[in-house]
Amino acid sequence: MSYQFEHVVVKMWWRRGIAVIYATNEESAKKVLEALKENGYPAVLFKYSLENVERAWSCYDAIVFIMALGGVVRTVCRFAQGKDKDPSVVTVDDGLKFVIPVLGSHWGSNKLTEELAKALNSTPVITTASEQSGITSIEELANTLIAKVINVNAIVKVTSALLRGENVCVKGLKELPKGVRGNYVIGEECKYNVVVTDKEVECRDENTVCLKLLKVAVGVGAKKEASPTVIKEAVFHALDILSLTLDRVSVIASLRDSVESVSKELGVPFRKITPEEINSFNDECLTPPSEKLSELGLKGVAEVSALISGGNGAKLILRKIQYKREVTVAVATVGEQ
Amino acid sequence: MSYQFEHVVVKMWWRRGIAVIYATNEESAKKVLEALKENGYPAVLFKYSLENVERAWSCYDAIVFIMALGGVVRTVCRFAQGKDKDPSVVTVDDGLKFVIPVLGSHWGSNKLTEELAKALNSTPVITTASEQSGITSIEELANTLIAKVINVNAIVKVTSALLRGENVCVKGLKELPKGVRGNYVIGEECKYNVVVTDKEVECRDENTVCLKLLKVAVGVGAKKEASPTVIKEAVFHALDILSLTLDRVSVIASLRDSVESVSKELGVPFRKITPEEINSFNDECLTPPSEKLSELGLKGVAEVSALISGGNGAKLILRKIQYKREVTVAVATVGEQ
Repeated sequence: MSYQFEHVVVKMWWRRGIAVIYATNEESAKKVLEALKENGYPAVLFKYSLENVERAWSCYDAIVFIMALGGVVRTVCRFAQGKDKDPSVVTVDDGLKFVIPVLGSHWGSNKLTEELAKALNSTPVITTASEQSGITSIEELANTLIAKVINVNAIVKVTSALLRGENVCVKGLKELPKGVRGNYVIGEECKYNVVVTDKEVECRDENTVCLKLLKVAVGVGAKKEASPTVIKEAVFHALDILSLTLDRVSVIASLRDSVESVSKELGVPFRKITPEEINSFNDECLTPPSEKLSELGLKGVAEVSALISGGNGAKLILRKIQYKREVTVAVATVGEQ
Repeated sequence: MSYQFEHVVVKMWWRRGIAVIYATNEESAKKVLEALKENGYPAVLFKYSLENVERAWSCYDAIVFIMALGGVVRTVCRFAQGKDKDPSVVTVDDGLKFVIPVLGSHWGSNKLTEELAKALNSTPVITTASEQSGITSIEELANTLIAKVINVNAIVKVTSALLRGENVCVKGLKELPKGVRGNYVIGEECKYNVVVTDKEVECRDENTVCLKLLKVAVGVGAKKEASPTVIKEAVFHALDILSLTLDRVSVIASLRDSVESVSKELGVPFRKITPEEINSFNDECLTPPSEKLSELGLKGVAEVSALISGGNGAKLILRKIQYKREVTVAVATVGEQ
């Protein structure tokens, strides 16, 4: 079976991962999981329980349920908080006949549905008009750029301009991220603006939203035999997924000394992590450890390393992905001081 | 276009009618409405509003939404109260490409979905296992028979027996209603029983649930030119839908004198209704009046007549259906004294 996903617009939505949750049919769930993983999405399998759904609801960007739609709807009703807060939700029936976007059609679940249906040879049940409506919100843009909104109070005015169809100039970028909708233009001649910067700036113009690009911490888990070349490739693969360049990385962290040499080569500070640090670290959004990790007495490597080295306030922005079965990489934002 | 519905098991579910609610695409909604009506289902069209959904939720047996699934799910979450209380919910996309059961798969919405998809040449998106699970509850059986449970406290024991797979004898019926699931048997030799009766009985055996068959009131609206023959056919058509025989009818009611002759011929008391009575009557579940009725200053005929003649506590059990475009018939239970 070969899977052909489009890795352009969508992947930015699923950086925090896709939870695959099944009620009874583990076999079908594993097929869905594999379809997602083979295409590089960070996907994690869970058996249905209210506890698991609750965690997935807050920790993952999307949930794919393998169960009947009626049960999914009852579950969604229990956890839904609003369009801006809920993950995308997709349902696949036990027989893998249909893939159905349930929540977040315009936030990526239609696209995920189409990709998954193609991979599984199922029918995508798209019920929204094909034309995507709406605009990319400032918050989404910030999220895509891995940036922080400095002056939140300017968002309303700039958003209103976008909704009226007025141009909003984006300054500080050479090109817009792919998939951005709305009248954003690269330029200088607008009444309303979005300024993207990596500097500490003051932002007093009420017609301008300032976005500060955040630094990131890269956590790496590697098998003993993983070569520096493969480790380096894995780091760049993760940065590529996030559309980040190396200058955004403030630290690379790992249990392995072999990663340190890669850090040095890349000119990025290295942070050595100890097993004790890992096991005293708690975050409910961590990917459950694999059997092998559990045997080693570790609750995780890549994600925990990224979060520890990111410092206080670090947030996971790329759930761990595997690279060539030898390396795992996860990325967190570096916490504000 | 020809519609071929199966009128066997399902129709009992939709006696209180199917609300067709559309967000924007009235044209598609009307096609759905016609598909339902041409097969005799009492179906009513509404534009989406929270008020209309709220009323449909409590007044109709099923709701078919013509809109995107995401919006339907958000709406369902707002109104859902539990499996036993919610109507069946089905979604059809604006393009009539998919028909999707959302709530109540085992309570009829899968069947409704299949019928509707066939009529509309759409894809039925069935996500539950094809085998229907579960048993017909005592309450459902009572509802099907248009009966009242006399000793509610015996329900738990008899239901437990059914869930254990034990036989439950049904006494007082020659055959079981179609579509009943579970180990109900016609017979006398069971530990657990359901007694169906039209008498006032005392019911003290804790292993026996007693169901008292209710009398009904038939409300008739007729065009001036409708012949007694057609009126009579219409009445029997309604009784047939409910699997009722004439001896269950305690009154026939109408604005029209022509209906009185039919009542006499059938040996059923007639209740003449006046326009004043109709317009001073209030029930939030009434089918909204047609344009023609509104012009005549009437808020409804068949349903109001049935409810008025049914007395205090009367409940609508068959939303008005049209017969040969000349007669409308609705049925209510006769209120307990």
